[in-house]
Amino acid sequence: MSTLCVPSQVPSVAEDCEQLHKAFSGWGTNEDLIISILGHRNATQRKLIRQVYAETYGEDLLKALDKELTNDFERVVLLWTLDPPERDAYLANEATKKWTSSNQVLVEIACTRSPKELLLAREAYHARFKKSLEEDVAYHTSGDFRKLLVPLVSSYRYSGDEVNLTLAKTEAKLLHEKISEKAYSCDDVIRILTTRSKAQINATLNQYKNEFGNDINKDLKADPKDEFLDILRATVKCLVCPEKYFEKVLRLAINRRGTDEGALTRVVATRAEVDLKIIKDEYHKRNSVPLDRAIAKDTTGDYEKMLLALIGHEEA
Amino acid sequence: MSTLCVPSQVPSVAEDCEQLHKAFSGWGTNEDLIISILGHRNATQRKLIRQVYAETYGEDLLKALDKELTNDFERVVLLWTLDPPERDAYLANEATKKWTSSNQVLVEIACTRSPKELLLAREAYHARFKKSLEEDVAYHTSGDFRKLLVPLVSSYRYSGDEVNLTLAKTEAKLLHEKISEKAYSCDDVIRILTTRSKAQINATLNQYKNEFGNDINKDLKADPKDEFLDILRATVKCLVCPEKYFEKVLRLAINRRGTDEGALTRVVATRAEVDLKIIKDEYHKRNSVPLDRAIAKDTTGDYEKMLLALIGHEEA
Repeated sequence: MSTLCVPSQVPSVAEDCEQLHKAFSGWGTNEDLIISILGHRNATQRKLIRQVYAETYGEDLLKALDKELTNDFERVVLLWTLDPPERDAYLANEATKKWTSSNQVLVEIACTRSPKELLLAREAYHARFKKSLEEDVAYHTSGDFRKLLVPLVSSYRYSGDEVNLTLAKTEAKLLHEKISEKAYSCDDVIRILTTRSKAQINATLNQYKNEFGNDINKDLKADPKDEFLDILRATVKCLVCPEKYFEKVLRLAINRRGTDEGALTRVVATRAEVDLKIIKDEYHKRNSVPLDRAIAKDTTGDYEKMLLALIGHEEA
Repeated sequence: MSTLCVPSQVPSVAEDCEQLHKAFSGWGTNEDLIISILGHRNATQRKLIRQVYAETYGEDLLKALDKELTNDFERVVLLWTLDPPERDAYLANEATKKWTSSNQVLVEIACTRSPKELLLAREAYHARFKKSLEEDVAYHTSGDFRKLLVPLVSSYRYSGDEVNLTLAKTEAKLLHEKISEKAYSCDDVIRILTTRSKAQINATLNQYKNEFGNDINKDLKADPKDEFLDILRATVKCLVCPEKYFEKVLRLAINRRGTDEGALTRVVATRAEVDLKIIKDEYHKRNSVPLDRAIAKDTTGDYEKMLLALIGHEEA
């Protein structure tokens, strides 16, 4: 479900490195060359490029990119070039340091990645920041948000498909009870959402709908100004239908006055190799405009070109 | 710091398996033979034995042992034979299912293992129980105990030695403040104990002592009947001086009317390959009796022989 286009004949890593080095040399930077290489290599290839580049030129490729590029284009190239676990660690750290109750990046990383991927991100966090992710999240958040976010980022959910239907019924009832009492941050709601496997949560939420008529997220919309409810709904969506969650992030990023480049860049860079194809389809269905056209309309220059390359736009 | 004695010339794995199989054959069981093999092989060797045994005889060695052995001897041999992460998963599951507020096994597993070992135990828990450890802990506990135990078993602490002294001072003060207010289960106390690295916690508790005169565990003794305080003190001990924690578990297991075989078996089986040598020294210092003599006095038969073999008693 990746949108990335890797050419059938990929140049050698050494050649890619040489071309990149050339793109940085002399006056000005050859952005098109950078896009034509990095925008068309998968994670394993990019990792190798970074390694060989450092060995050959004695400089981290990310440092070189940082010196040569600017603004949104720089950010998308840097995020994209990072190894996925390292990228998640980086985004999570950023989200933690400038955390506000409306910031859903931590939920996104904790819930849309596989349990194993989340662990790898936590490992990368240790290596890069000499601290643990949960330690920073616990330190920078408070109240109900802390109560939800710390177990979310600490979870190592079971990833099998087995489902306990009896449990699903009991916990659907329990969720409904607590939501009816507006006890949104009570221990049980948090426990179910932060520890059960995704398959189990999906079964529980299906039961919820069967038994009580509404999607749980509809019932979690009681107070549209309550940011804790927003984050609970994001948690549910990230766990059971990540592609819909990401479609909405893109929709809000594009459809507002002045594009939200931060969100746009993040979604494209983190999902291109995962499920961006499905997200694109969702986007088209929901907005009656293909995602590439919407992006082309809202962005310009090298930033636009890099985004289009990553979302698999034919001409990019 | 292991007490295990592995002979310098170890028979081939096939030979070990054949001998074990022989020990189970015919009328009665040759317990001495079992002890002479399993009581003198390290984790890697035992894992191989289990693997080759299953391939050769079409039966899991643990099943065979389970059929042949009984009572305390069975339990120590089974626990010992399990691969360490699987053993931790098994013990944690047992502790969760029959959890009571005085049960400290979860704290022990969460805090005396390295962060990486705890992760491996969580992985083994998935494989064996088709659920996550934190999910079971959250489900079977409640109140303050849940508030402490879930993040403890979910933690993946940073394991580097770096220490932030400014932070240690701030958090020592914060801990002292909360403990003075008897707010033992407040968010900050839990956050510090469940997320900071062991090195950082050690620095914080040193600051605590320097600044406020007492060991934190002394201040956590305000109410000797409060089981939450017991578990907080166990958490602190397991994090900063596991060998003292285990010495006390052994002391209490041995010095009571009727030995606590459960605790004795668990400590010997889980620590023999880790730090039982240090624990033995602590025990001798604290009780003026060598551990092997104390064990020999309190136990009998094959159980005694197996324990003595694992704690490195010369004649075993």
